[in-house]
Amino acid sequence: MTKPGPGHTMCTDRLDAMSNTPDNAVRTTGPAESVRAYIDAHRAAFLDDLAAWLRIPSVSADPARATDVRRSAEWLAAKLKDTGFPTAEIWETDATDGAPAVFAEWPSDDAGAPTVLVYGHHDVQPAAREDGWHTDPFEPTTVDGKLYARGAADDKGQVLFHTLGVRAHLAATGRTAPAVHLKLLIEGEEESGSPNFPALIHQHADRLACDAVIVSDTGMWSAQTPTVCTGMRGLTDCQIDLYGPDQDIHSGSFGGAVPNPATEAARLAAALHDGDRRVAIPGFYDGIVELTDAERELFAELPFDEERWLRTAHSHGALGESGYSTLERIWARPTAEVNGIGGGYQGPGGKTIVPSTAQLKLSFRLVAGQDADRIQESVRAWVTASLPEGIRHEVTFWGATRPCLTPLDHPYLQSVARSMGRAFGQKIRFTREGGSGPAADLQDALGAPVLFLGISVPSDGWHAPNEKVELDLLMKGVETAAYLWDDLAETASAR
Amino acid sequence: MTKPGPGHTMCTDRLDAMSNTPDNAVRTTGPAESVRAYIDAHRAAFLDDLAAWLRIPSVSADPARATDVRRSAEWLAAKLKDTGFPTAEIWETDATDGAPAVFAEWPSDDAGAPTVLVYGHHDVQPAAREDGWHTDPFEPTTVDGKLYARGAADDKGQVLFHTLGVRAHLAATGRTAPAVHLKLLIEGEEESGSPNFPALIHQHADRLACDAVIVSDTGMWSAQTPTVCTGMRGLTDCQIDLYGPDQDIHSGSFGGAVPNPATEAARLAAALHDGDRRVAIPGFYDGIVELTDAERELFAELPFDEERWLRTAHSHGALGESGYSTLERIWARPTAEVNGIGGGYQGPGGKTIVPSTAQLKLSFRLVAGQDADRIQESVRAWVTASLPEGIRHEVTFWGATRPCLTPLDHPYLQSVARSMGRAFGQKIRFTREGGSGPAADLQDALGAPVLFLGISVPSDGWHAPNEKVELDLLMKGVETAAYLWDDLAETASAR
Repeated sequence: MTKPGPGHTMCTDRLDAMSNTPDNAVRTTGPAESVRAYIDAHRAAFLDDLAAWLRIPSVSADPARATDVRRSAEWLAAKLKDTGFPTAEIWETDATDGAPAVFAEWPSDDAGAPTVLVYGHHDVQPAAREDGWHTDPFEPTTVDGKLYARGAADDKGQVLFHTLGVRAHLAATGRTAPAVHLKLLIEGEEESGSPNFPALIHQHADRLACDAVIVSDTGMWSAQTPTVCTGMRGLTDCQIDLYGPDQDIHSGSFGGAVPNPATEAARLAAALHDGDRRVAIPGFYDGIVELTDAERELFAELPFDEERWLRTAHSHGALGESGYSTLERIWARPTAEVNGIGGGYQGPGGKTIVPSTAQLKLSFRLVAGQDADRIQESVRAWVTASLPEGIRHEVTFWGATRPCLTPLDHPYLQSVARSMGRAFGQKIRFTREGGSGPAADLQDALGAPVLFLGISVPSDGWHAPNEKVELDLLMKGVETAAYLWDDLAETASAR
Repeated sequence: MTKPGPGHTMCTDRLDAMSNTPDNAVRTTGPAESVRAYIDAHRAAFLDDLAAWLRIPSVSADPARATDVRRSAEWLAAKLKDTGFPTAEIWETDATDGAPAVFAEWPSDDAGAPTVLVYGHHDVQPAAREDGWHTDPFEPTTVDGKLYARGAADDKGQVLFHTLGVRAHLAATGRTAPAVHLKLLIEGEEESGSPNFPALIHQHADRLACDAVIVSDTGMWSAQTPTVCTGMRGLTDCQIDLYGPDQDIHSGSFGGAVPNPATEAARLAAALHDGDRRVAIPGFYDGIVELTDAERELFAELPFDEERWLRTAHSHGALGESGYSTLERIWARPTAEVNGIGGGYQGPGGKTIVPSTAQLKLSFRLVAGQDADRIQESVRAWVTASLPEGIRHEVTFWGATRPCLTPLDHPYLQSVARSMGRAFGQKIRFTREGGSGPAADLQDALGAPVLFLGISVPSDGWHAPNEKVELDLLMKGVETAAYLWDDLAETASAR
């Protein structure tokens, strides 16, 4: 879901109330020694299982791999049953070409325990040896503690660590069922844009009901700086078509005396931002959850290497809203972006015309407090008010993904950070994610806070050749999962 | 060269010194009766000749018609010899795929007479019956006094009327040679953009030396409102390439924090004009020959039908530089136009990227006093000053056509208007042309004023199916040509 990226770190040094170092951890899930001993004892079998699953090329984008995607779902359902989940089902989507999801459920013995839904996906991006892989992408290969295979990090490794995690949780605590009512929903179309996911969760909303969602499909800052992501930006994007003359006309005969849709498209795109590169659409910032001074101070203290970040961005300069840092701009500020612009002649050489039409493709990243419907209305009104007589327009919005944000002081977020802190043996920092994903669909459909638990690092190469997962980090994920359920149950009972 | 278009009329009512009604014409070329009688007597043969020439499909853009273009040149050279020109030659261009021009010369008996060069072209636009022609485009057909054929108006009819015109001039005055040293240069590549024309006139500058150029490839306002065009705008156009990130990047991860070349292209295009739609590039208006109050008053008095003009422009609103009328904007004001803009994703739906590159195609129409080289420098400096760090750019100018303008009170311009006034029996008005053409190349290369003589009307359908010339107007062209040489000679001797 969320690609790990450098720079997504928020230090918590100043938030004493949220301190999550192992030293002052107030909750336990049996002695860490028991957890670690169990994991060590079962590590080899776990990695064998993961390798078996990674050998199934569950590429959801490739219709020729539909059978493999189904085989992947069946493999996972069987593995979850084997793990101990009383229920593990294949869920079909409504679409005839939809790929199956896996749903599993393991109720707690404690009827009053909170219900937690783990989200992940079992489909993978396409991969072929000739894309630049050093090994067969579907024949897992371990070199220097790194397991190379398509899906190793995104997302099979990060789904599967919950199987060993819950077993370690039970072994260390002597329980026969998890401390929480545990549910898993592992979809099969994430790498194809989750086209049927909203319908699927709507259809099964009753069975998916929960008190918290754990998205297990993300990354962290780096191996040295483990982090928890606290939210994602929302997104709505549109196309604006402008119509001027009924056909391209001669710029000598008519230019300078009639409106030019390419000029008007440019004027709209240019007017998206004011001189401070702040979005200039009236009402755009209304109601947003502003960064607090405390958060901004924490951002400013981060050892953010902008030069390195620019190289990651393949960019040659930083530019954005005045008064905000790069991290603030990409994590916590809403944006308007020109994704595409076109109009008139674009072939070789020149052509002296006033074009008939022009087109703009815009996307807006949204933060908590912004409502996509209201933003769409604002954009429509702004376009209508901006255009001169003689230019007709159409605005088409493609859709909307809502922003999601779990406040830093949310108890469940603290549970995740605390469990991770125990596993990693160090302070956990917080990030946000500038991109957008279906997390907010879960948040909205199920009415539960979304928490992100991921151990992948930027060098893992999501969607790229030679994707890998670092085995030590993967086992930290197992260990985090082993601590988490008890911590969440205790946190819930303390509320 | 210059397409006739409605609205290109400038009333001369107020310019008493320039009155050109037949009543107060001060010069004659023998009795008009003699001229008319000669023309009437030779009209049928002239039209037969024209039909024979029109049957040659001299389409310069079609390599398969190269032989026909050559045949057309040879036909014209023979016809000019037959008319009496002592010299009529085929001129080859330097290019191996160039089309031949025709040069003819008929010196006056009066060594002190001025030298006049008539410019036209013998090549035609492509035409095919299936494009919507009601008759074969290369089988001339006369219906209701209109001769339909490709090239009837553009430009064979308007070239050929000089053959009967000069014969009528001689017949009515009893001369054996024209009153001026008469030269004709009829090129064969005008409909292909005159690629080799500047080189051709440079190569033959000595033989083309003249005191005035008559461009016989234009139109007038309407059959009811004969006009003379006094100038054309210049043109320079360019492409601006902008380079941002080295590849398209994710708008969620990076958007809002790095410069976006599509946004910057839009900001450049938007910044071309200020809020008054005046060109905002520093230095753009420096040194221009401004419209005089008198000219502006004349423009304002014209019965210009803006609604009708907008229909011709296929446009749905008038928009341009504040403080100027539509006619002023298209005739006498320099402009900046976005001919094309492109960047990022332009396919169906959305794509949430910050694009890597963007491109702008701009053209600038220039008026007298503007120097294309200086404008190009201004544009380059403006682009460089406008872009933020992180956006690399390249500006490529395609070329430049200089503006040309013959002042309303120029004696030779008055000769043309007076001759036309005698032929049409009514006051001649003046227009300008917003487009650009090789007239200025002649003006610059030969150092002579350029005068426009055209009898085509907007409904003649230049470059369109069912191109035609109105026979009555064509014969008015013949008659104008019959009066013009004596008038020019007398005007020159009076200077």
